[in-house]
Amino acid sequence: MSFNSFGRVFRFSTWGESHGPAIGAVVDGCPPGLPLSEADIQPWLDLRRPGTSKFTTQRREPDEVRILSGVFEGKTTGTPISLMIENTDQRSKDYSEVAKAYRPGHADYAYDAKYGFRDYRGGGRSSARETASRVAAGAVARAVIPEVDIFAYVSEIGGDAIDFANFDPSQIGENPFFCPDPEAAKRWEALVDAARLDGSSLGAVVECVASGVPAGWGAPLYAKLDSELAAACMSINAVKGVEIGDGFAAARLRGEQNADPMRPGDGGSPVFLANHAGGIAGGISTGQPIKLRVAFKPTSSILIPVETVTREGEASDIITKGRHDPCVGIRGVPVVEAMMALVLADQKLLHRAQCGG
Amino acid sequence: MSFNSFGRVFRFSTWGESHGPAIGAVVDGCPPGLPLSEADIQPWLDLRRPGTSKFTTQRREPDEVRILSGVFEGKTTGTPISLMIENTDQRSKDYSEVAKAYRPGHADYAYDAKYGFRDYRGGGRSSARETASRVAAGAVARAVIPEVDIFAYVSEIGGDAIDFANFDPSQIGENPFFCPDPEAAKRWEALVDAARLDGSSLGAVVECVASGVPAGWGAPLYAKLDSELAAACMSINAVKGVEIGDGFAAARLRGEQNADPMRPGDGGSPVFLANHAGGIAGGISTGQPIKLRVAFKPTSSILIPVETVTREGEASDIITKGRHDPCVGIRGVPVVEAMMALVLADQKLLHRAQCGG
Amino acid sequence: MSFNSFGRVFRFSTWGESHGPAIGAVVDGCPPGLPLSEADIQPWLDLRRPGTSKFTTQRREPDEVRILSGVFEGKTTGTPISLMIENTDQRSKDYSEVAKAYRPGHADYAYDAKYGFRDYRGGGRSSARETASRVAAGAVARAVIPEVDIFAYVSEIGGDAIDFANFDPSQIGENPFFCPDPEAAKRWEALVDAARLDGSSLGAVVECVASGVPAGWGAPLYAKLDSELAAACMSINAVKGVEIGDGFAAARLRGEQNADPMRPGDGGSPVFLANHAGGIAGGISTGQPIKLRVAFKPTSSILIPVETVTREGEASDIITKGRHDPCVGIRGVPVVEAMMALVLADQKLLHRAQCGG
Amino acid sequence: MSFNSFGRVFRFSTWGESHGPAIGAVVDGCPPGLPLSEADIQPWLDLRRPGTSKFTTQRREPDEVRILSGVFEGKTTGTPISLMIENTDQRSKDYSEVAKAYRPGHADYAYDAKYGFRDYRGGGRSSARETASRVAAGAVARAVIPEVDIFAYVSEIGGDAIDFANFDPSQIGENPFFCPDPEAAKRWEALVDAARLDGSSLGAVVECVASGVPAGWGAPLYAKLDSELAAACMSINAVKGVEIGDGFAAARLRGEQNADPMRPGDGGSPVFLANHAGGIAGGISTGQPIKLRVAFKPTSSILIPVETVTREGEASDIITKGRHDPCVGIRGVPVVEAMMALVLADQKLLHRAQCGG
Repeated sequence: MSFNSFGRVFRFSTWGESHGPAIGAVVDGCPPGLPLSEADIQPWLDLRRPGTSKFTTQRREPDEVRILSGVFEGKTTGTPISLMIENTDQRSKDYSEVAKAYRPGHADYAYDAKYGFRDYRGGGRSSARETASRVAAGAVARAVIPEVDIFAYVSEIGGDAIDFANFDPSQIGENPFFCPDPEAAKRWEALVDAARLDGSSLGAVVECVASGVPAGWGAPLYAKLDSELAAACMSINAVKGVEIGDGFAAARLRGEQNADPMRPGDGGSPVFLANHAGGIAGGISTGQPIKLRVAFKPTSSILIPVETVTREGEASDIITKGRHDPCVGIRGVPVVEAMMALVLADQKLLHRAQCGG
Repeated sequence: MSFNSFGRVFRFSTWGESHGPAIGAVVDGCPPGLPLSEADIQPWLDLRRPGTSKFTTQRREPDEVRILSGVFEGKTTGTPISLMIENTDQRSKDYSEVAKAYRPGHADYAYDAKYGFRDYRGGGRSSARETASRVAAGAVARAVIPEVDIFAYVSEIGGDAIDFANFDPSQIGENPFFCPDPEAAKRWEALVDAARLDGSSLGAVVECVASGVPAGWGAPLYAKLDSELAAACMSINAVKGVEIGDGFAAARLRGEQNADPMRPGDGGSPVFLANHAGGIAGGISTGQPIKLRVAFKPTSSILIPVETVTREGEASDIITKGRHDPCVGIRGVPVVEAMMALVLADQKLLHRAQCGG
Repeated sequence: MSFNSFGRVFRFSTWGESHGPAIGAVVDGCPPGLPLSEADIQPWLDLRRPGTSKFTTQRREPDEVRILSGVFEGKTTGTPISLMIENTDQRSKDYSEVAKAYRPGHADYAYDAKYGFRDYRGGGRSSARETASRVAAGAVARAVIPEVDIFAYVSEIGGDAIDFANFDPSQIGENPFFCPDPEAAKRWEALVDAARLDGSSLGAVVECVASGVPAGWGAPLYAKLDSELAAACMSINAVKGVEIGDGFAAARLRGEQNADPMRPGDGGSPVFLANHAGGIAGGISTGQPIKLRVAFKPTSSILIPVETVTREGEASDIITKGRHDPCVGIRGVPVVEAMMALVLADQKLLHRAQCGG
Repeated sequence: MSFNSFGRVFRFSTWGESHGPAIGAVVDGCPPGLPLSEADIQPWLDLRRPGTSKFTTQRREPDEVRILSGVFEGKTTGTPISLMIENTDQRSKDYSEVAKAYRPGHADYAYDAKYGFRDYRGGGRSSARETASRVAAGAVARAVIPEVDIFAYVSEIGGDAIDFANFDPSQIGENPFFCPDPEAAKRWEALVDAARLDGSSLGAVVECVASGVPAGWGAPLYAKLDSELAAACMSINAVKGVEIGDGFAAARLRGEQNADPMRPGDGGSPVFLANHAGGIAGGISTGQPIKLRVAFKPTSSILIPVETVTREGEASDIITKGRHDPCVGIRGVPVVEAMMALVLADQKLLHRAQCGG
């Protein structure tokens, strides 16, 4: 029941602070015999790596992952896989002011209230840097579910949404926003750059689709597939909302609109004529694509002064210098994908435990 | 890691099917010495009980709870509290058709795909009837967190939202919709009744607020307070979306708009000038009210025919006879409250484990 | 991580006190489609039932089990199986003295120290009566592992051990001691009866063998098969020691004596020429029979006065009236078998989760 | 529920293979604000370090621990503590033969049967080298329970037991056997050296005592203090038996002999006149010293040929070259102490969660 672990049978734990010597993850319960090397993990980390465009933080981290255990002769052994990423570009001097006053929107005050004490350098444990560990663990999860294809993208930044008429998945890798709509990508360039120059920040919505999930993964109640996905996504820094399928829009539909009608399919399995449910019914996958949407708040680290208090209880104003993402949701894309992979790998093994096959 | 349990230190497991002899919950980890009797639990069950108005299912269940263990001389002993509610008004004959064909929007197909087999009577384990067990367990949780005040209400039905200018918490118990806006309550009467007469159903949004939670409950990452709440709410039948604080609206704010500025307070603790965060930062409570919103889809059981397939793979149309809620979100109110209480009780004990106090 | 649950994927929770209305267990994670009815569970409860001879407590409980959920049309559905056994022969008046003073060897003082409060009637939660719930859950576990054959027996009472030269498994059911050596059974009759008439009690050793477990169940470290079995057995009331294979005797062997040599077998799997290891190496089954031994202390409830203190801290002497087993280890036999079944069912499913097959 | 984690609230996970680049542990749930540095951990590792006398393996490992996270300015922060120990003296060439044939008594065959594949270098994950991670984690646990004093010692090697009349705890650190009886230590020198020169090995019994544990830690049933200790000790490599208090000897006592009588004490708490129970009743500590005994089998790696089979199923003889402990139980002493500390730290926090204080 640890505070820093996730998953039930396929389970990972992360550790590390933004400005410590390293961060990492331990993945436990991985099936044996799967091909795995650093080369299978690194590309996903590279997608999330900071400093690749002016739209992300200028911290420069190579984010090179090392596998310290659990792999032998290029294959997983079934024992814990320890992944480590060294921190190389810590500039602790940037954070001296943070030690004194709380940054609104950050975990500063809450950590102090909880622990009476905190590692204030770069947000410490609450830094989005922790998500690199998740992305590394997610790459291992992908090896467990080769039948599943996962992709995520940004569908909205600062309230400016993509036009689904322009939706082209091949565009996602072609712009710094993981944007499937080339028109929107152009607009966002100006939008995000303006926010950056203002010292402000923007929120975003990330959508994720997993296809190839067979019907039957999940569980009736507290290990429901949608419940697990909600927990997984809501555990990502800066996330404030999660929707499965139509989400809040479903609350505005009538029963007959929201039903996903079924017809006999060629291969024995039924065909669904709609997917309002996002591929999950009663907590269990239906064989349709799993679809979810995640809301990222705007980055709390901004150069615009915000009223705050110091640790000593004095009124103060704070601006957060340092190197930050003007829109933290962008780099959330590989993180959401990783969480989807981690949940599905776990659910696959759980299903196999109870139902075989 | 069981499939039907929730919580870490304060943990409950539910069992039971809609049309079996009984349903129930086992609550484990409850602190000793708390006053508890059936009379502390029954009122919450009565709030959720079916058949109290024409806007809810006409199934008539007294939903009388019995405490079978864990209480002695009116106080909790620290051992497991077993709660049982007998099913009295099962009409299994209503469900014969369900055995043959899958009801779209229901768990029927997914259960069959998973287990190769299902208890089709009234949805079996996937019936919203299971939520009575949660409400009973939630009443025990309330005894663990007397410092916390929780209330929930319906803020939107079928796309028709309340006007917060009319918001009056004392109205919530005065209408069959848990509606804090008397104007909206009037409109909903017509709206829900029309849907009912059409044999259709409506979705709803439920909002929940917990005040009195001190700063410091929660955990940095995978036991984050918001992550736990998201999992808890998404595990409720028919829920498709969860928002903490501003939720998806936060994705449309700029950093300086979304910040919750802080000023020195009288008692030493800072005062927040806004609560976009919904009382949680970095996964840990800030001392502000915890706020969340939950989207319920429209009830899938409707009298309007929907295309489906039979277990044998034949095309068919199905209507769901029987007694159903035209808007399942309404009775979701006490369930969301219960989940809030259950998560907070667990987090209180977890915090005490790690940080004392 | 609840305090009253056991198992990882196949998981059960028990609840109930000796003198409450009922006791029970909830079994979660059971595979679907297994034939199960009360008739499959009752015979195991009957083996453990009190009052069947003068060598066990004279409390008369029919111990009739009811299945309240998780079974439909005679087969498990994959949802939680709720099992309940009503308490019928509670004589609370017998226990008035226990409320005032602590019975040495019992949990009385420890419970009071922990909870500040206890249900003193018949030991409350710490009563051996709880083991009926385990036996019921164990019967479900047996349905999960039809390939495994489990049997246990008493090998020693009050220091008088069986002679393995007389070992005859068919004798186990032929005497009130679960004794495989008819000579020893005769001696024990006099031995136990004498202790009973003295108002004293005797300890016992129970041995358990599981054959048919394939090689490969278990895990390298903290879910080791032997570690799980040790936890399972040590959780039984009155147990003070657990040995796997040769146990403490192995500590007196040299490496070459303790090795279990291997030779090629007919069916591809190797044949072992000895089984000092008790069928487990490195925490994982080897395909040999799993063997363990469990030490039960003498029943703490005796009619011989023992020095104690009252709740108010006064010196006192106490004798424990009421109906007690002169040798609680005897009825431990079906309980040890149940725990073996419960651990193996869990490990089978865990193995399937990680390694398939 | 991971396979390589232990504990409930204070939880640790270990990773790493004997011949990989490093091994380590992640400790989660540690209270914040405890002083901790590498200097607090290293002395315990030094006690367990190989190569310190001819009675232990000649592998030379400095076993230098690094803290990679969870500590800031010399104090624990409440976030996960990542501990890493690099492997420096791997001689993989020693193990080529092990790749081909199974070493009886080792995990070789069981791992292959489970995973279809194994890292055979030095036993891989099943190597006793993993216990260094436990010792490091145990040092963190000690910081959580400063009120508890733990010490362990070897009480028997190869069947030659200490004489408790000679028991002198100050002697434990004065000989290479952790032996509290200087006479026995002298005899063991000859005994172990002879076994070593024969290429054979010896078993041992380790005893551990924890004093200062207050009454009230533990739980009624499946998180019983004794059950947790049994699981913890049985998870150590080469352990085949665990006893609490009198253990198997209690099975030979009568009820009145086994009772631990109580008298009023000075400070309000009762005084016990004996400790047959080993400080635990009903799964909960009584305030007396916690006492347990652990049986280590003789090291399976010996130079005396043993019959075996190859991976291809051919009959073969095997001797295990390389550097091994002639009596692995000796270095088990700091490991048993570590497991005692880890269980008690967890139980302290669990007790605080449920009962406060």
